[in-house]
Amino acid sequence: MAHLPGTSVHLLADLCQGKRLSDFELVEATLRQAALAAGAKVLSVHVHAFGEGMGVTGVALLAESHISIHTWPETGEAAVDLFVCGNDVDAAAGLDVIVGNFSAEILRRHRIERLSRT
Amino acid sequence: MAHLPGTSVHLLADLCQGKRLSDFELVEATLRQAALAAGAKVLSVHVHAFGEGMGVTGVALLAESHISIHTWPETGEAAVDLFVCGNDVDAAAGLDVIVGNFSAEILRRHRIERLSRT
Repeated sequence: MAHLPGTSVHLLADLCQGKRLSDFELVEATLRQAALAAGAKVLSVHVHAFGEGMGVTGVALLAESHISIHTWPETGEAAVDLFVCGNDVDAAAGLDVIVGNFSAEILRRHRIERLSRT
Repeated sequence: MAHLPGTSVHLLADLCQGKRLSDFELVEATLRQAALAAGAKVLSVHVHAFGEGMGVTGVALLAESHISIHTWPETGEAAVDLFVCGNDVDAAAGLDVIVGNFSAEILRRHRIERLSRT
């Protein structure tokens, strides 16, 4: 996991009006697809379902850091974050996949530069 | 995983001057200790070591969302985030544990409210 100063980006997004937010398999597949779209290498994927019709929480550990998805089907909300390091990765492309897979809208979004910048 | 509006906090911190940042077991123990200090329930902990003397990346999936730690021993840096939902959890207490365990300094810190607020 190389650390190139100035290339660490943490993208946080709160999603609303999402569909299929209790779908364990969709969350797992979305984590992998988002990593692929971002150009990141998946080390492992871990997903937990809170029960039938309830939320799902999952994370992909990446060579470039991580992607997480937490869902609340009861309100149609999800909180996601994509933290990637390197010039060849694109967190925003990963977010597009997540938003698309859950047919969601972005309620709020933050892009934060992490770690040393020089 | 209950979602109480206005109680979802995402704390991001960039640490510097850290020690033992390539210590797999310390990262794993720290994720659990940070969750305990925050008052959160651990669902599972997953840690990956990039090799002898190299960085470690790990995450604790929580009933209240997640905690992650990514380390770069070569520069003494670590990037951590603690995302918790609920009135009875305290992300800052978890961050204190992480900073203490790695004898690190906080270079930069962001506290972001997530999801719906009303």
